[in-house]
Amino acid sequence: MKKQFLLTVGAMALVAVTSSRGEDLALDGFQPPLRHTWDQPRSGVDNARVVLGKALYFDKRLSKDNSLSCNSCHDLKRFGVDGRGFSLGFENHEVGRNSPTVFNAFGHITQFWDGRAPTVEEQAKGPILAAGEMAMPSPEAVVKKLKGIPGYKPMFEAAFPGDKDPVNYDNVGTAIGAFERLLVTPSRWDSFLSGAEKALSPLEQQGVKAFTSYGCTTCHTGTLLGGDRYMKAGLVKPWPNQKDLGRFGVTGNEADKLVFKVPSLRNIEKTGPYFHDASETTLDGAIRKMGRHQLGVEIPKKDVAAIKAFLQTLTADIPAELAATPEMPGAVVSKSFD
Amino acid sequence: MKKQFLLTVGAMALVAVTSSRGEDLALDGFQPPLRHTWDQPRSGVDNARVVLGKALYFDKRLSKDNSLSCNSCHDLKRFGVDGRGFSLGFENHEVGRNSPTVFNAFGHITQFWDGRAPTVEEQAKGPILAAGEMAMPSPEAVVKKLKGIPGYKPMFEAAFPGDKDPVNYDNVGTAIGAFERLLVTPSRWDSFLSGAEKALSPLEQQGVKAFTSYGCTTCHTGTLLGGDRYMKAGLVKPWPNQKDLGRFGVTGNEADKLVFKVPSLRNIEKTGPYFHDASETTLDGAIRKMGRHQLGVEIPKKDVAAIKAFLQTLTADIPAELAATPEMPGAVVSKSFD
Repeated sequence: MKKQFLLTVGAMALVAVTSSRGEDLALDGFQPPLRHTWDQPRSGVDNARVVLGKALYFDKRLSKDNSLSCNSCHDLKRFGVDGRGFSLGFENHEVGRNSPTVFNAFGHITQFWDGRAPTVEEQAKGPILAAGEMAMPSPEAVVKKLKGIPGYKPMFEAAFPGDKDPVNYDNVGTAIGAFERLLVTPSRWDSFLSGAEKALSPLEQQGVKAFTSYGCTTCHTGTLLGGDRYMKAGLVKPWPNQKDLGRFGVTGNEADKLVFKVPSLRNIEKTGPYFHDASETTLDGAIRKMGRHQLGVEIPKKDVAAIKAFLQTLTADIPAELAATPEMPGAVVSKSFD
Repeated sequence: MKKQFLLTVGAMALVAVTSSRGEDLALDGFQPPLRHTWDQPRSGVDNARVVLGKALYFDKRLSKDNSLSCNSCHDLKRFGVDGRGFSLGFENHEVGRNSPTVFNAFGHITQFWDGRAPTVEEQAKGPILAAGEMAMPSPEAVVKKLKGIPGYKPMFEAAFPGDKDPVNYDNVGTAIGAFERLLVTPSRWDSFLSGAEKALSPLEQQGVKAFTSYGCTTCHTGTLLGGDRYMKAGLVKPWPNQKDLGRFGVTGNEADKLVFKVPSLRNIEKTGPYFHDASETTLDGAIRKMGRHQLGVEIPKKDVAAIKAFLQTLTADIPAELAATPEMPGAVVSKSFD
């Protein structure tokens, strides 16, 4: 509980849930339930950052040839992914790792599969400048392009009222991050955690039990069922793909070879293909592969089905407004749209 | 609904509540209910910022003579205030306006009674340097002092991993702000808004009706019942104290004379004396004064009592861990505490 050691002791209402088969399920490790945050109070400035961040997130003009936005590979209408094994960047360059979903990403210990960015604000500044992704040549080039779109000026001013020159690259990251921090996806699972026993079917509850007893919770724990630690791919049986060395590329430590951030399982049903190397296309296959390579067991078909049923309870209804494409700031001042 | 125009349409579950007297209460304007956020997922970096921010918030070494911290005037164990009409700063200098509570302040449109800071992060940097408050002579002096406390170095490094020189004054504000953004105080009122009709007594529900029908909701609306707009003190009948010109001091606009940010009524029972000029010490008196000067009515005793009963439902249970004084970073590296 490192992430929350400061504040949670004694104040968290833990709910004991008895399954429909009369068994006690060990749910403490999954607490507290996830909740929407986008409907909570925001200051004027914070709201201006969210509005700006959403516009930037969807704006293809942040790429060299105006063809790609953040949303191209992290499509909010598709649970924050594009469904491809490897996304296509600038001039159809295939990126090196599977695009992770942006939903709930702000709550992960770090960003990217290898943890090379500490926050979503820092993460957001990466792909815009990556040659094989959005391919903008420099932060200065991004700022120059944004300054050429007059509609953005008042939005940056409202979002960063203390800044003399608010249209700058750090603020691009800060605004996109402010928007991404609202991408929270509670689901039926959270109702169950809160004590609504009937929110999960008997099969789904069997799945919880199987998930826990096979030891999936060694890594996939907490509110997000992952995202809070690193782990070696192929802990028990070597990972088939030995080319991508993961976090070793960031730290240079031998011990970090083949180590990746454990992904959250929220919306996992909808975010395949799976793993950093996109090596499984089905959720059944992903469950079996995890059993084999991380836990050293061949999970029987029946238990795979139960675990899958449980994982499907982590699929959220994404509010339509959240994922809707906003009106893009125009090349002329916004008055002309009145 | 400017603050939330982006995301709320259609996604907010509005609850129709019928009072125990069978009357429909108009509750839409108070939606959505407030919820704790401190128990929701945080990244490692975000958590490090909260831990650092809490330490800074409580650290008297941020004042010139090591006698005052943020918590001295905004005491988290006393609902974020000190109970004085005017707080005492450096060498017992009396400050010019009543200290507003820090609870829920991050959700206000701006900070300070006159809105001169856009965010809690910017606000936090003010009083440390104010001659009559914490009286540090300059940002550089604050940074020098913090660098002289070795225990802070690893905390700033963990909170700002991308920074070459993380112990800097902007980061002080950012960290304190990160902590303050968790100071959210749901109460019985929120249970009622969520549909628990019996969460409010008949008298309290009469209070809701009186509050609405007298027009208090003209200004005290939304989830925080205030904090989202400015208003002239003495809208109908001139405000007795004509010396403090409020927002005029920030904007220089004639129209902003005697204009102040509308305070939130959350925990109002516990945060007197009342108004920017601390001109009322009792909640009854404050309700009557608002009626007289803002609405042009003498609210009868019976209705004052009902409104007061309603306002008391906005008093939260502050989680003890949230308000507990943390261990202060030591003058020697923290290893010595192991």
